[in-house]
Amino acid sequence: MQQIFHEIKINTKGQGLYDFTNETASWINKQKINNGILNINILHTSASLVIQENADSDVLYDLKNFFNKLVPMENKLYKHTTEGKDDMPAHIKSALTNNQLTLSIKEKKLILGAWQGLYLFEHRIEKHTRLLSHHFIGD
Amino acid sequence: MQQIFHEIKINTKGQGLYDFTNETASWINKQKINNGILNINILHTSASLVIQENADSDVLYDLKNFFNKLVPMENKLYKHTTEGKDDMPAHIKSALTNNQLTLSIKEKKLILGAWQGLYLFEHRIEKHTRLLSHHFIGD
Amino acid sequence: MQQIFHEIKINTKGQGLYDFTNETASWINKQKINNGILNINILHTSASLVIQENADSDVLYDLKNFFNKLVPMENKLYKHTTEGKDDMPAHIKSALTNNQLTLSIKEKKLILGAWQGLYLFEHRIEKHTRLLSHHFIGD
Repeated sequence: MQQIFHEIKINTKGQGLYDFTNETASWINKQKINNGILNINILHTSASLVIQENADSDVLYDLKNFFNKLVPMENKLYKHTTEGKDDMPAHIKSALTNNQLTLSIKEKKLILGAWQGLYLFEHRIEKHTRLLSHHFIGD
Repeated sequence: MQQIFHEIKINTKGQGLYDFTNETASWINKQKINNGILNINILHTSASLVIQENADSDVLYDLKNFFNKLVPMENKLYKHTTEGKDDMPAHIKSALTNNQLTLSIKEKKLILGAWQGLYLFEHRIEKHTRLLSHHFIGD
Repeated sequence: MQQIFHEIKINTKGQGLYDFTNETASWINKQKINNGILNINILHTSASLVIQENADSDVLYDLKNFFNKLVPMENKLYKHTTEGKDDMPAHIKSALTNNQLTLSIKEKKLILGAWQGLYLFEHRIEKHTRLLSHHFIGD
């Protein structure tokens, strides 16, 4: 059994879904582990992770839009307002989606459906650098 | 350490929660791994996975009903409408629940609470065949 | 490769978020595994798990408050009402968050962001004892 730890940085430019499937897949491809578990954790609580459809970009637009309506950016709704009107909604959207994804790797390939991609879901308005911990365990 | 990959197919007949605990448990029971991690990924983004109460079927009805009210099937709310009025809501419900579950196996048994079952949550109206990737790693 | 199974009990006193990061971290620190995967499952479906900000307790208040507004405790909305007005909403909140978390351990430390903590999210009004299965696999 081998284990490898790695960090991938994603620069975000406001709210929306950022596909990082290729970054992860190409890193996996360079490792000496063929089969195993890949555990990805986002080290922030105002952005999150989802597996979503990668075929039609309208899906990504509708997702962002739905979450913005479900969790309004209105200071009067929250006590935690010191970090900006988008911060508390970002924590809630993070709780509604995922902070981590556990994926299976078979013969150096991510097991994903034909139309699935890995997305970082940025919930903050301003630019951010987001860190994704990658932990690959297998043989 | 050993690893086994497997796929379980579930035929769904419209929206609702489908218990697949027995399919998974009986497959686990036939493997030569006694203790380990079982990673289950659904290879679709319009159906999802949840661990839920298996005692009262009203819970399953209320879950389906709640998600249908939270994410209405109305084309005017979405840009992505080409695949049917239930498709974009299905992607959103998938983002609100889980695409994957990671479970612990001890002495060939799933570690679950007394009232917990594994469910596929189908969000589409028509019949579908859903694939659940199973990846068992342990010894 | 080694595997260790363990259970952590958390006594809750009504709805809210309970930080168990220290319990988990101090247990990890006593084990002979240095690097590996920690799989945590809550053995209940009326309480759940989230990774959230641990800096400002207002965030925890706002989270509890948001989920209570999103999923009202009103019997007329649900069929499953025999276990109390807070039970069906608890199952729904559990489906909207997580029943399990998979974490990475590097040199006996949880990989978490600077402001991240592990929380049990209790959705029931009365006192409960909650069991968190811990399964640590690595070397």
